[in-house]
Amino acid sequence: MTYCVALKLNDGLVLLSDTRTNAGLDNIATYRKMFFFEEPGERVIGILTAGSLSVTQTTIARLQEAVDSPDSDGTTSIMKAETMLGVADIIGDVLSRTRREIAAHSELQQGQATASMIVAGQRAGGDMRLFLVYPEGNHIEATDDTPYLQIGEHKYGKPILDRVVTPETSLEDAQKAALLSMDSTMKSNLSVGMPLDLAVIETDACRVSTKRRIMKDDPQFSEMSHAWSEALRDAFVKMPI
Amino acid sequence: MTYCVALKLNDGLVLLSDTRTNAGLDNIATYRKMFFFEEPGERVIGILTAGSLSVTQTTIARLQEAVDSPDSDGTTSIMKAETMLGVADIIGDVLSRTRREIAAHSELQQGQATASMIVAGQRAGGDMRLFLVYPEGNHIEATDDTPYLQIGEHKYGKPILDRVVTPETSLEDAQKAALLSMDSTMKSNLSVGMPLDLAVIETDACRVSTKRRIMKDDPQFSEMSHAWSEALRDAFVKMPI
Repeated sequence: MTYCVALKLNDGLVLLSDTRTNAGLDNIATYRKMFFFEEPGERVIGILTAGSLSVTQTTIARLQEAVDSPDSDGTTSIMKAETMLGVADIIGDVLSRTRREIAAHSELQQGQATASMIVAGQRAGGDMRLFLVYPEGNHIEATDDTPYLQIGEHKYGKPILDRVVTPETSLEDAQKAALLSMDSTMKSNLSVGMPLDLAVIETDACRVSTKRRIMKDDPQFSEMSHAWSEALRDAFVKMPI
Repeated sequence: MTYCVALKLNDGLVLLSDTRTNAGLDNIATYRKMFFFEEPGERVIGILTAGSLSVTQTTIARLQEAVDSPDSDGTTSIMKAETMLGVADIIGDVLSRTRREIAAHSELQQGQATASMIVAGQRAGGDMRLFLVYPEGNHIEATDDTPYLQIGEHKYGKPILDRVVTPETSLEDAQKAALLSMDSTMKSNLSVGMPLDLAVIETDACRVSTKRRIMKDDPQFSEMSHAWSEALRDAFVKMPI
């Protein structure tokens, strides 16, 4: 399982993903689920992945191949697409094709080789945008009403986001909300696990502003997780009934 | 959809269910999902239901029929079963048979006519017990390590239970935790909705101690829901990052 969340604020984008991958409960490994394609100042694209590792790895590899190919153009390379909508379309096409091919090769049913992705970014002169690309290749976009998107095990971590995140939320608070959302998810689903990848893309920077890997024993994250548990218990005790 | 939760504390049982039933998004109705079979002082059995309404209603009706039948004995009537384990077994048998029959009649696949139940109660001289009965008729039981059971849309409301509920939790705090768990669920899933049914069975009372229907405009519940949102936002703002 996986949990990835991305928030689109007025000040920028916040991306967070876990790294746990499992094929059954006894085959657990760590794989990065956050990828960047970047030409600093011109464009930055962040991709978060959930689902079958063979589908997501092949999709990312094909996207990279198209970027590196001298024959690519704005319809095949996400670094040449004229808009972020075009970027999401290319990723949707490659994802959907890869998924169908792998399912066909491996005689799996469609549902067994599936994956979805969050695509976030900005190109110079364009708006910052945030998409969720479905396994079928179609996509939805975050709006001011719902300024975040989630993939994977999304339910445990949703209430905190609904309560505190708006487009006006600061980048610092948004990172805090994303980490607390992840903390609730990891507490309830063992197949979502550390280390975490956290990144911030500031508005109009067109580059990854900060990127941080949070390891299992990270004192700052442990302290936050502990403080949140305490705060919730305190609030609970003080609640009227 | 449905959300039902039951907590087994040292001091007693707390049961909470919503009442929203839907066949598609445009066919929404209110149905009770909490049922009691009671002979005060001798035994009390609470049943919470989730899943296909035709399966749960028929199951409850058949359980009632067996209770009313002069020919019933400890293997067919939940009011005559010698232990709560026997009660859970009878309910499992009736549920599983009803589910299979309805699926066969209506040419549905097994998964489409499904239901699960929470069974809670005590008989004089026995322990207070809490079971989750699966559609197949088998069951699991709440323990001191995990003193609560949920059916239906369980994920949104789980984190708060995990953080605050232990067997030592008072009945008052347990009601608060159950209601906050329901509040988080209703905020995220529209197909879980008011009114709510809340009941308490005190240890060794062998009767329903309190029963309360919480309507949509209940001022106490609204205040609690609002206060919890405020408390969470306050705690969030004060959190270190």
